[in-house]
Amino acid sequence: MAEPLRIALAGLGTVGAGVIRLIETNAELIARRAGRPITITAISARDRTKKRGVDLTPYAWEDDMVVMGERGDVDVVVELVGGSDGPALACARTTIEAGKALVTANKAMIAHHGLELAAKAEAAKVALKFEAAVAGGIPVIKGLREGGAANAFERVYGILNGTCNFILSQMEDTGRDFADVLAEAQARGYAEADPTFDVEGIDAAHKLSILAAIAFGAKIDFNSVDTAGISRLRAADIAQADSLGYVIRLIGMAEPGIAADGSPRLFQRVQPHLVPFDHPLAHVDGATNAVVAEGNFSGRLLFQGAGAGDGPTASAVVADLIDIARGEIGAPFSVPVAELEEMPAADTGHRTGRAYIRFIVADRPGVLAEITAAMRDAGVSIESLIQKGRSEAEGEVMVSMVTHEGPESAVSEALRLLDGAPSLARPPLVLHILGD
Amino acid sequence: MAEPLRIALAGLGTVGAGVIRLIETNAELIARRAGRPITITAISARDRTKKRGVDLTPYAWEDDMVVMGERGDVDVVVELVGGSDGPALACARTTIEAGKALVTANKAMIAHHGLELAAKAEAAKVALKFEAAVAGGIPVIKGLREGGAANAFERVYGILNGTCNFILSQMEDTGRDFADVLAEAQARGYAEADPTFDVEGIDAAHKLSILAAIAFGAKIDFNSVDTAGISRLRAADIAQADSLGYVIRLIGMAEPGIAADGSPRLFQRVQPHLVPFDHPLAHVDGATNAVVAEGNFSGRLLFQGAGAGDGPTASAVVADLIDIARGEIGAPFSVPVAELEEMPAADTGHRTGRAYIRFIVADRPGVLAEITAAMRDAGVSIESLIQKGRSEAEGEVMVSMVTHEGPESAVSEALRLLDGAPSLARPPLVLHILGD
Repeated sequence: MAEPLRIALAGLGTVGAGVIRLIETNAELIARRAGRPITITAISARDRTKKRGVDLTPYAWEDDMVVMGERGDVDVVVELVGGSDGPALACARTTIEAGKALVTANKAMIAHHGLELAAKAEAAKVALKFEAAVAGGIPVIKGLREGGAANAFERVYGILNGTCNFILSQMEDTGRDFADVLAEAQARGYAEADPTFDVEGIDAAHKLSILAAIAFGAKIDFNSVDTAGISRLRAADIAQADSLGYVIRLIGMAEPGIAADGSPRLFQRVQPHLVPFDHPLAHVDGATNAVVAEGNFSGRLLFQGAGAGDGPTASAVVADLIDIARGEIGAPFSVPVAELEEMPAADTGHRTGRAYIRFIVADRPGVLAEITAAMRDAGVSIESLIQKGRSEAEGEVMVSMVTHEGPESAVSEALRLLDGAPSLARPPLVLHILGD
Repeated sequence: MAEPLRIALAGLGTVGAGVIRLIETNAELIARRAGRPITITAISARDRTKKRGVDLTPYAWEDDMVVMGERGDVDVVVELVGGSDGPALACARTTIEAGKALVTANKAMIAHHGLELAAKAEAAKVALKFEAAVAGGIPVIKGLREGGAANAFERVYGILNGTCNFILSQMEDTGRDFADVLAEAQARGYAEADPTFDVEGIDAAHKLSILAAIAFGAKIDFNSVDTAGISRLRAADIAQADSLGYVIRLIGMAEPGIAADGSPRLFQRVQPHLVPFDHPLAHVDGATNAVVAEGNFSGRLLFQGAGAGDGPTASAVVADLIDIARGEIGAPFSVPVAELEEMPAADTGHRTGRAYIRFIVADRPGVLAEITAAMRDAGVSIESLIQKGRSEAEGEVMVSMVTHEGPESAVSEALRLLDGAPSLARPPLVLHILGD
């Protein structure tokens, strides 16, 4: 058997400990499948003394993770520190500059610095792999980069944040409100103490920007992702959606397009969507993630599995290591960075679709007339409208509607017409309906 | 850009024409992703004059597909002829013996001769790839062989035959019987004139044996797949399952095990199963395929998409070609053939589970007592039992039951006790219930 692939681990949180456990537990089958053993040489983390449930004594300790790639006995550094910049980025840069491969689960770093790191890796002819950065244990990067590589993708979308999906599923099952469910999720360790990255859609947007770059051959453009989270959703929205035949899911969606002048555009949005009961994503519950890729020959491909957790994330990290051990060192974004296209953000005004719009209004006469007049004046056609009784706070009433297929710009215009209207107790909420 | 990868196409049915269309339509993006163009040099089929909806004039015609691999201007032969032996196998052998790579969509050939071909390919250091042989456009071979490669798989199962799933979905939606729906599927081109391979589970068994070999590092053993099809199912079974909270799906399932003497065993079964409504496979409708792989670290991975059709199958064929163009030539079954284990068929008697058992009985007193006594004597615990009115043929009544978790051997024993009982108008039908 060939020489082992020797790795160094930067970061020993739950995922790092999971990688150690996986490499130890499955050592024999990994060696058989990879054609050579994968062994851990060195490790590094902020706190050397912390208990991690795995025996670290067989491995060399480095206080400074940034220099691990420079060790002569290391072929690959696995970066599991997290954070878009700081030590993670420094470690990534020095590793690649030292001519070593880098495997990372760091979505924020790839979303912000992936192009720079990929260009460096291509120049150094080393692998840069990040399967674990998107959708945990689901091999979706490989699914797009290799499994679906024959296709022009028409759309890529999915459920990319397990915390949000867990919260939405819980809201659905229990009828409780967002804040309540979030608090429980935090207590049970399913959500971070500061949940902003998850619940405001930023984590999903990181992942979406990575998927979009690979699917469409675009330069990563995280800043152009139109991002909204789930914190404004109410139990009543979920109940309303249910009565209309939908569940609510936080969907990240990317779609290539063409501007009026013929130049390429990229649409990227993370937002809660109404998903019809008969769509496969409507059955994705709990912390599960799922990605749909629609290819021009493959049709709709669905990849589903655990979106987080030490085991699934370690599974993706070690799959990358096996690829490297087998000699698979392709362009990190499927095509070389120099060939990725600049795809500026698409103008969403040209998009058409159906939407759910929810208003919290003052409970007084004329409010419905005011709202429906604005819809009429903006050219929004209403498919159904429900005004609920006074279950909301004192003097407030919920009015929700579903529009017919129409331009998104019309909905924006209607809301603009209603802007500042005294009948609106709170800003309206618009959720798009996932179309075929 | 590097030299093109030059392919020859053996077989120009709908999939062959699909491959040509794909390679022409997506030529530019394929070249970018593969790092070099993929071009078609030569083609071959039984009938040169048949209209195929694609222009064949740019390609050299070979009357004898068996010699295409020997052409100096061909790097890869794509075999799309079908059939486990005959011209397909001859073409595969000469191609590999000529030191050329082989890509095939031929599940029967791989199920029967995959080990021989893989050993030859490994010796010749050429690629043998067959993503399109299992689950059409879904990159599930890659999903097991690479994406999930870090895992010991505990179970692999799925919906592997689109024709059966289409028929079952139709039976479900319309309440019609099997023969009726099959006839319509044949009229609409969704089922073959001779549907045996599909409806009797043989096609699914071919695919399952390939998945099992890759997932468990086992020598392919198609002959040990315990195979039953869907032709004995009645509309009443589907209605009954529905009332109990299940759909019926033809599931192929493989699971590694250990014999009493510690030697490895492989359980492989294709059979209609009752699938609980809340399982992801319960929502796989129409001709869609889906495969679940349960890894010891990844947890449950689900791959879903179109299981057949020219576009999806071509997508899988060309994904293999792109892999070859990129230089990815690994062991076809993930580990070298010499390292695949002999895993004799597991003794199913030790398996436990829940089952649905349906009897068609004579409508006379004492029948239920006879059946339930046999169950008691064999130690089968009945969870629910329903005797329907006389909707069946004259003088016949349907009795169906669901058992508690228990050994499969007990159910077999109960049926043995009832064997030849005059009350049974027809042989009973046993369907296993898909467990977690």
